[in-house]
Amino acid sequence: MVNYPSGVQPSRAAGSKKNKNVRYGKRGMGLEEMINEANSYYLVNHLAVIHKKPTPITVVHVDYPDRSMAKITEAYYVQPSTTDYNGVVNGRYIDFDAKETKNKTNMPLKNFHQHQITHLKNVLENGGIGFFILAFTNLAEYYLFPAALLIDIWDKSQLGGEKSVPYNLVSKQGIQINSKMIPSLDYLPALKSFFKI
Amino acid sequence: MVNYPSGVQPSRAAGSKKNKNVRYGKRGMGLEEMINEANSYYLVNHLAVIHKKPTPITVVHVDYPDRSMAKITEAYYVQPSTTDYNGVVNGRYIDFDAKETKNKTNMPLKNFHQHQITHLKNVLENGGIGFFILAFTNLAEYYLFPAALLIDIWDKSQLGGEKSVPYNLVSKQGIQINSKMIPSLDYLPALKSFFKI
Repeated sequence: MVNYPSGVQPSRAAGSKKNKNVRYGKRGMGLEEMINEANSYYLVNHLAVIHKKPTPITVVHVDYPDRSMAKITEAYYVQPSTTDYNGVVNGRYIDFDAKETKNKTNMPLKNFHQHQITHLKNVLENGGIGFFILAFTNLAEYYLFPAALLIDIWDKSQLGGEKSVPYNLVSKQGIQINSKMIPSLDYLPALKSFFKI
Repeated sequence: MVNYPSGVQPSRAAGSKKNKNVRYGKRGMGLEEMINEANSYYLVNHLAVIHKKPTPITVVHVDYPDRSMAKITEAYYVQPSTTDYNGVVNGRYIDFDAKETKNKTNMPLKNFHQHQITHLKNVLENGGIGFFILAFTNLAEYYLFPAALLIDIWDKSQLGGEKSVPYNLVSKQGIQINSKMIPSLDYLPALKSFFKI
């Protein structure tokens, strides 16, 4: 459990350093920053409570340089068992992850991981709402895409099917998230419209 | 943000080492272990999807002893902004924290923190279900107690009211969680009954 797990890339796990170099959107924010901004906006304006989960870390050793401070000196990333985001909208449980690609014609399935798919299957089975936010960064286009469709594509890919989600399918079956000033990635209207909540 | 925050005790943050010495329940499990066991049981048996959130940690430095391993060598605990547990039951969003005391007559409010109260207020405002699991360890009694009542008691305490929740109130206004073999803390029936879901 303490070795570096598959499905957690160093760049992502260590605070999305890689993603910070990918700048897009009118205010130069990365995808995670835009979602965090939207979530803060929804919280302050009483529209929803949605948080990003902390990255799971196993702590092995902690030093206490003084009474009021704990310094972790040995710890390891562990494989998450869920997606990154969940919360409540109008009493309904919602759960999602965000994926981005520079490709203009498809979203590669290598961006997704089995534990995310399994978790979203469980969420759907228990009446929750599951989806992905898919970002085509070089098109500056963002889509809400239902988990049920992605799970179907994933399961077929495991049996030898396509290893990516075509852009045309995303734009047809998903719902585009409009750009706004504040928040810049205002995904809540798309979510409420798509799932009728 | 990197100093040791109030509301995160070393014992808790470093993996509940302190709590591991408090043994109770017929199989000698701590409160957190019992809740995790119940959550695993609910997941496997398709009854609910409820997870404990990872402890939030800010990573400052990571070493890579080899390509497949990331060793965190400097990191700090940060103040959480939510409770420890959330998930979905029959499509409804549920959110809770667990508290324990050795007291037999009351649950001290010092076990609770402002960020947990604020988060649960937000959850309730957005139609979610919020509660606490309160454990009186020396009585071996466990209760589900609604967040709305606890928030009311907390707000009054800030204005000079009582600094604890009387056991009598918990046993009267909460709902007792019955002990079982598997899972030992089967809180889902109490939850579904209390909130009628």
